[in-house]
Amino acid sequence: MTARPVVGLLTDFGPGTEHVGALHAVIAAACPAADRIDLAHDVPAGDVRAGAVLLARLAALLPAAVHVAVVDPGVGTERRAAAVALAGGGALVGPDNGLLAPAAAALGATAAVALAAPEGPAATFHGRDLFAPVAARLAGGAPLTSLGEPFDPATRVAPDLPAPDVAADRLLAEVLLVDRYGNVQLLAGPADLERAGFTRGDRISATVSGTDRPHPVTVARAFGDVARKGMLVHVDSHGMVALAVNGGDAARRIGAEPGRTITLARWPVRSTP
Amino acid sequence: MTARPVVGLLTDFGPGTEHVGALHAVIAAACPAADRIDLAHDVPAGDVRAGAVLLARLAALLPAAVHVAVVDPGVGTERRAAAVALAGGGALVGPDNGLLAPAAAALGATAAVALAAPEGPAATFHGRDLFAPVAARLAGGAPLTSLGEPFDPATRVAPDLPAPDVAADRLLAEVLLVDRYGNVQLLAGPADLERAGFTRGDRISATVSGTDRPHPVTVARAFGDVARKGMLVHVDSHGMVALAVNGGDAARRIGAEPGRTITLARWPVRSTP
Amino acid sequence: MTARPVVGLLTDFGPGTEHVGALHAVIAAACPAADRIDLAHDVPAGDVRAGAVLLARLAALLPAAVHVAVVDPGVGTERRAAAVALAGGGALVGPDNGLLAPAAAALGATAAVALAAPEGPAATFHGRDLFAPVAARLAGGAPLTSLGEPFDPATRVAPDLPAPDVAADRLLAEVLLVDRYGNVQLLAGPADLERAGFTRGDRISATVSGTDRPHPVTVARAFGDVARKGMLVHVDSHGMVALAVNGGDAARRIGAEPGRTITLARWPVRSTP
Repeated sequence: MTARPVVGLLTDFGPGTEHVGALHAVIAAACPAADRIDLAHDVPAGDVRAGAVLLARLAALLPAAVHVAVVDPGVGTERRAAAVALAGGGALVGPDNGLLAPAAAALGATAAVALAAPEGPAATFHGRDLFAPVAARLAGGAPLTSLGEPFDPATRVAPDLPAPDVAADRLLAEVLLVDRYGNVQLLAGPADLERAGFTRGDRISATVSGTDRPHPVTVARAFGDVARKGMLVHVDSHGMVALAVNGGDAARRIGAEPGRTITLARWPVRSTP
Repeated sequence: MTARPVVGLLTDFGPGTEHVGALHAVIAAACPAADRIDLAHDVPAGDVRAGAVLLARLAALLPAAVHVAVVDPGVGTERRAAAVALAGGGALVGPDNGLLAPAAAALGATAAVALAAPEGPAATFHGRDLFAPVAARLAGGAPLTSLGEPFDPATRVAPDLPAPDVAADRLLAEVLLVDRYGNVQLLAGPADLERAGFTRGDRISATVSGTDRPHPVTVARAFGDVARKGMLVHVDSHGMVALAVNGGDAARRIGAEPGRTITLARWPVRSTP
Repeated sequence: MTARPVVGLLTDFGPGTEHVGALHAVIAAACPAADRIDLAHDVPAGDVRAGAVLLARLAALLPAAVHVAVVDPGVGTERRAAAVALAGGGALVGPDNGLLAPAAAALGATAAVALAAPEGPAATFHGRDLFAPVAARLAGGAPLTSLGEPFDPATRVAPDLPAPDVAADRLLAEVLLVDRYGNVQLLAGPADLERAGFTRGDRISATVSGTDRPHPVTVARAFGDVARKGMLVHVDSHGMVALAVNGGDAARRIGAEPGRTITLARWPVRSTP
């Protein structure tokens, strides 16, 4: 007998909702042996790129599992539904709208199939009626090719993850996520900080798009490097550039939210383009 | 050895709360083999009828499971606590305040027992101290009749689920639920739309009780049938009539919330009675 | 073969977040046999003492389990990371900042080890990178002493849980928690009510610190002892003194939130010091 199959679930349905419960119920009914794991359900509604980044992060912790991901603002349109086999033995199941691509790229896609939409009325709940059943079949050992029409995994839709705009003394990046503590995660990594020439201890400014108010922020390694209620920019535990306030809420202080652009600049402040 | 027992949990305790954790802990301690499934925990606080409809929907996905449901504004009063055996081999456990009736009706109740309230102080947490232990015993194979005093399952309390008021060119229905995306689910089905004479493509109006502002809405099959930000009325993935905005939030637009009445009417607008 | 290991999880990460998902994924990967239970994830952010009280309550339901708890505003500072063995066979894993002490005291600590911080960048996610792996190892049967440097469990940091200030006709206590229904749980027990001389049926006043408005409240045993929308003070299902409104929200009515002090006093009202 093989190991217990594992199914990860990631959605924008909201924690504790009936929609999440329906996925669990469908998977439990079709594959009772599966260990179902809630990876995240608080993805901002319809935010495919946030879901894509979270899926890549979390699926990396369970590379041999089947992950079903549903952030699907285009349900009912012509977007493709897909299942992707991974090099580590796992699989990804969900809409091919950019949600699966970073995880597939990180873990290595070896094959992909397009899933036929379930028959019936237009207002179908694809999570319950398509993606969860497919995930349960994969978890139960069904071969990928039995589930749909093969396509080249390299043709998957890529998500909208703009690279930061970096120059000397200046880094422009979009906000990816704001967490419960008000930490603001940017679409930028440590190499971008370095290219901008920002080093530990520098006092720079952070300005949110749509405002012209620069906020002082210290380039730091840890929260303890700044005074209580001081704002820092650091590389967070996911390897991304993030703004935080020691003992406070950075997002609230500067008015940051997903999709906004943040300009980090050396004083004197340059205006956001 | 038989299959692994499954226990579904549905409450209005709120996702991730200690109250939900307590139910899990009690069930895990008393029936370690059980696969516990969070069906929904975001039922609006004290909203028995919303819980009842969700339980009927979700229990149908796992008809052989034991489901413990707690939406219990009357805890500590004389309401009966019940366990109900289902035709499919499963059971329902919870307060007999209307919460269990639709699921029992849909799945077929074969027997019922009244559960004695736990002894001790008045401020008892019946979920933790009564319903979860009973669910664990049922999941572990205890016969229903060992758990309480039998009563006729037909005498269960029915929830307050008012039928819509339908006439030609006019449908009045209560709002059952508003989800995270702002979709507004009404206590009405496709047959009611048909009786009102509303068919696909019709442009009608939706007016919320307590306001006199009609909003334009298109009778549609899918979100894609209306322009972006357009409002539609359609039959949703649960077979219920629902209002939605393509790429937007219908509840916020029209000010809908559970318990309000919505009038769908053919233009020219008739005033809400 | 022994019983299936159980791992409880309690955090302030928020329900359904990627952070909770990461703990589950790490534990599932390292100890696939473990039954993981979400005890609570809605602890107010950084509220160590609320987390400590909840952990003590919930761990008592599963005394033989390994519980990983993370409410850790001091992550990255010099606070100790600990694993504590319990008399019942279970263990506690988390920051030694007061979070573990009440559960350890209630369940009996038999040994403790200090855990070395994971190597790498400062911005380490100790839940994912330290506490969850240690919990998984304990669940898998690793001996406590293999995980860190022993220390005397009696030297654990105690949380800030101020005793109530009680005199005749007067009880001052801090608010510990406000739940979803607006019930206000105080850091006081039934003996404190008794020492103040408050008995069932007394009509007294409740005043929140920072306001000078006394609200009428009845000392009661159950919600049904007061009129609908009436406020009561009672001993709740956790054995703590709590304010509640029958069919309403006590916290909203009086403006209570965690950390505020509430004065219960016999009319005529005495001013809050």
